[in-house]
Amino acid sequence: MTKFLIATTALVGALAGTAQAETIGVSIPAATHGWAGALNYHAERTIERLEEVYPNHDFVLATTPDSATQVSDLEDMVATRGIDALVVLPFESEPLTGPIQRIAQSGTWVTVVDRGLAVEGIETLYVAGDNASFGRTAGEYFAETLDEGAKVVAMRGIPSTVDNERVAGFEAAIEGSGIEMLAMDHGNWNRDTAFTLMQDWLSRFPEIDAVWAADDDMAVGALAAIEQAGRSGEMFVVGGAGMKEMVDRIRNGDEAVPVNVTYPPAMISTAIEMTVLGVTSAAPMSGEFIITSELITPENAESFYFEDSPY
Amino acid sequence: MTKFLIATTALVGALAGTAQAETIGVSIPAATHGWAGALNYHAERTIERLEEVYPNHDFVLATTPDSATQVSDLEDMVATRGIDALVVLPFESEPLTGPIQRIAQSGTWVTVVDRGLAVEGIETLYVAGDNASFGRTAGEYFAETLDEGAKVVAMRGIPSTVDNERVAGFEAAIEGSGIEMLAMDHGNWNRDTAFTLMQDWLSRFPEIDAVWAADDDMAVGALAAIEQAGRSGEMFVVGGAGMKEMVDRIRNGDEAVPVNVTYPPAMISTAIEMTVLGVTSAAPMSGEFIITSELITPENAESFYFEDSPY
Repeated sequence: MTKFLIATTALVGALAGTAQAETIGVSIPAATHGWAGALNYHAERTIERLEEVYPNHDFVLATTPDSATQVSDLEDMVATRGIDALVVLPFESEPLTGPIQRIAQSGTWVTVVDRGLAVEGIETLYVAGDNASFGRTAGEYFAETLDEGAKVVAMRGIPSTVDNERVAGFEAAIEGSGIEMLAMDHGNWNRDTAFTLMQDWLSRFPEIDAVWAADDDMAVGALAAIEQAGRSGEMFVVGGAGMKEMVDRIRNGDEAVPVNVTYPPAMISTAIEMTVLGVTSAAPMSGEFIITSELITPENAESFYFEDSPY
Repeated sequence: MTKFLIATTALVGALAGTAQAETIGVSIPAATHGWAGALNYHAERTIERLEEVYPNHDFVLATTPDSATQVSDLEDMVATRGIDALVVLPFESEPLTGPIQRIAQSGTWVTVVDRGLAVEGIETLYVAGDNASFGRTAGEYFAETLDEGAKVVAMRGIPSTVDNERVAGFEAAIEGSGIEMLAMDHGNWNRDTAFTLMQDWLSRFPEIDAVWAADDDMAVGALAAIEQAGRSGEMFVVGGAGMKEMVDRIRNGDEAVPVNVTYPPAMISTAIEMTVLGVTSAAPMSGEFIITSELITPENAESFYFEDSPY
């Protein structure tokens, strides 16, 4: 074994300190709650970390209530701040595609997060979640945990590619497990719709062993209906996205919410960290990074719980 | 525009300094020259950078001449160094799959680089090049640069999925451009085979405007045959991988080698950097990162030229 241990040096931040100063713009939807609220929390937290690790770099964070404001935010970042790199989660794909394309064509590094643009190949780096793995991870838990003949119901989101990919992943994972799917319907990623849907299923099916809700908002609605019907001990609910309330129940060993699946708002942190590597290190960081959905369990829940995050 | 500029603090390395100390093992094939030689150069350089940025972490680099040695290197890293994370470019897929799977199952972070394992889903993070984009990037340059009716030849590698993906990307990019493909044959990623193949084509075709060699070693062989035949002014050659000699010719404005396409040995740097983020920051770094092949031109060649690298 030819090996060597590179000595730990006392030159803290020496290389970081001599690195060229760059200004990195971050543009994301504004929100104080929900998934987008957590996006803001993680963006701020990551910028704070990076300001300490790389004090030469500057960061400009803009949060935006709509597409038109985001377009003018971007123009402002280029014109008055002279950003060298941009990390952007487009409010909507269509109206942002042209403005982001012009920024990329001017030679600025562009990282697009989560929501793709309407034209391919514009961005330097694309960072997004993995919808197939989101569904598969939940389905694998069902297949491993439930006995043959177990009865389940499933709530899907608003009809869309995202929803189709999630459901296809879930269905492939439970195939051959002998699990019986009593019903599957669209809860539209909505808490109230999910509540009503679950009420209907509870009245129709005397036995339900588990519920898959393809998003935590729907899981909250389903859990409320189950509690109201007084059937909490009968079934567990697996949602997804890593909502704080769900992670808290998991780490407290709540049997109604045994696990969850990530679709992490902290992907904005991934995008900012990778962009900084792209403009700081010699590592090639141009490409496409698809973040795996992970299973949150009582054992690892602590590392997915962010005390100060709104979600 | 709701924006704020987070003040640059003087707490250099404060967060980095308080981060938990982790030991990261890096296991790669040994080599003093060629693509694998550059892999070693970039791994060492990146570890040096990271030791300065994150002085709490330790790095163990092992370079290996064969699969059996790599297996014992890995056992040693786990047993005597207690690594928390492993970055590995498997010498071969089959014999390394079992040993790496056992390490992953024990809870160690595993990043696999370039060469996938024989079983899917073992690694925490997968980092690799993009063969389709490798071919497409070269093909797009041909389509943009050459006139309709231009005559080209193409050398492909050893028959394999890698080769098929590269060629499919190239062919799709030149489709409809009016470029005439005189001949395409396997140069087997070998300098001598490429030399002989090019000699044959030069004797058969009085007009050749450009050569695509799907790897720089073949490009070197093709260029030697063209020079020997005294036909250097007639055609250009586009290889791929970012060999130092090619990048040097590009930055010097050599018309025989106008551009190149990356398949960067520095992907080991990407893998090490992302692994360190995975064990250091709160950003989700588990997933699949496919690095785009970039076009090296006289304008950007400097950033792809590594003076001290052997390749």
